[in-house]
Amino acid sequence: MFDKITIVGMGLLGGSLGMGCRQKRLARKVVGVVRRTSAVEEVLKHNAADEVTLDICEGVASADLVVMAIPMESIPVLARQARAALSRRCIVTDVGSVKGSLVLRMERLLKSTCHYVGGHPMAGSEKSGIAIASPTLFEGSTCILTPTKNSSPTAVRKVRRLWEALGCRVVHLTPRQHDISIALVSHLPHVAASSLVNVLAGSSRDPLSTVKLAGKGFKDTTRIAAASPKLWAGICIENRDAVLRSLEVLREKTSEFAELLKGKDREGLEAFFQKAKDLKDRSN
Amino acid sequence: MFDKITIVGMGLLGGSLGMGCRQKRLARKVVGVVRRTSAVEEVLKHNAADEVTLDICEGVASADLVVMAIPMESIPVLARQARAALSRRCIVTDVGSVKGSLVLRMERLLKSTCHYVGGHPMAGSEKSGIAIASPTLFEGSTCILTPTKNSSPTAVRKVRRLWEALGCRVVHLTPRQHDISIALVSHLPHVAASSLVNVLAGSSRDPLSTVKLAGKGFKDTTRIAAASPKLWAGICIENRDAVLRSLEVLREKTSEFAELLKGKDREGLEAFFQKAKDLKDRSN
Repeated sequence: MFDKITIVGMGLLGGSLGMGCRQKRLARKVVGVVRRTSAVEEVLKHNAADEVTLDICEGVASADLVVMAIPMESIPVLARQARAALSRRCIVTDVGSVKGSLVLRMERLLKSTCHYVGGHPMAGSEKSGIAIASPTLFEGSTCILTPTKNSSPTAVRKVRRLWEALGCRVVHLTPRQHDISIALVSHLPHVAASSLVNVLAGSSRDPLSTVKLAGKGFKDTTRIAAASPKLWAGICIENRDAVLRSLEVLREKTSEFAELLKGKDREGLEAFFQKAKDLKDRSN
Repeated sequence: MFDKITIVGMGLLGGSLGMGCRQKRLARKVVGVVRRTSAVEEVLKHNAADEVTLDICEGVASADLVVMAIPMESIPVLARQARAALSRRCIVTDVGSVKGSLVLRMERLLKSTCHYVGGHPMAGSEKSGIAIASPTLFEGSTCILTPTKNSSPTAVRKVRRLWEALGCRVVHLTPRQHDISIALVSHLPHVAASSLVNVLAGSSRDPLSTVKLAGKGFKDTTRIAAASPKLWAGICIENRDAVLRSLEVLREKTSEFAELLKGKDREGLEAFFQKAKDLKDRSN
């Protein structure tokens, strides 16, 4: 499918991508670019790349696909560093969680250099690092691509085929649609999960004992609250408008619920829960 | 441990309890009380009881332990029906999700009849019914008992041993402490999960397509929103004051977050997420 795939950043996503590409033989060669010397051995030990380098220009040279699997803020920074070494036929894509301004910046940055296609595989974990990477991480998940009028249809098709080969259902959205939708299904739930834990942290004299009473419901509802605070602060700032709007709607919904409960409106409460159940049941 | 355990209601909790008691030989005989004729065969087929009856008085006669595993509102109603048939040495317990007024009512109802100990195993699922019951459902979960000054220490000890034998960690709380704590770790997360789904249902032109973009994070955060609306409307009304108070605190936390995000306060946002992460990490 590709001759040389270079993955910049070999954490959970980059590592899993490398393992998957090697296992499914999606490229003649998979190269990993890492920042720390200690990561070189680790990536090779996990069979996540054929070669590993600390030098991004060496890494991307003659690659026909470069996947930026690093925190969103670093993507344009490293793309700028790599630019001189990118070949004209190369396709650059990424796994960043917010697409609006990133796609704009990346298209500007690379427009006379090579092709760019924004991407966002909806896979991951509250944990991070190559130690928990897996070649099957993407199987059964959705990968969103955000092509624009500037995108080469051939480049989009090739990126699409890569994610499909790794078991993803691929969906195309505009960068703006992506950010609004992902605020609803990813960023808002994240803020809600952390808020729920913080309610507990603030309301209870012994929060740890109270948390330990919890059943599987609380554990699942708040699982993502254990994710990286730095990463998520960055994501929320990057998608600020959509996150703030969705938070406002969440506040309306919880107010609506509180009013029903104050009035002991059993029918209204059942209808509130039923509406959510219907959508959950249809999506399973 | 017991001679005859009678379980009133053979759904997910009652069925799992019956299976566990039989598998671990915690009673010479396990009797199930069901409402529908069709349930008799089903309970026997799942090996959840030695005998099944539709007649609650026949079911509880000569039992030394009766576990009420039915929706909370029905517990005092069926306890009243069973009362005449209960033996003096019998211990009645239950699995109801809200304890304050229930414990009060049950103690009044049974005070000259037999012993009562309130209980609440923190196990279950968004699904219901004996078809998904399992003898290991309670393993590794917490079971809260809510003894009062009226409780017989021997009865409390016996109920405690039952749940411990099924693999539970048993914690004692007053009925009031129980209701406040469980509002935080169970009822509030439930309302939040359903609210998150309803935000999506209301904000998106095609909610189903948007839900289908979601990764595991959204699925886990909102899993419990698929639970029974009728059951949860009942639980929230029963624990109204504590749920309303916790909802108010959730609204404060989400406001706090929104203010930080409006101000692009990266440090403040990281601290918000970090506070939640710390408690999650400590509780794992």
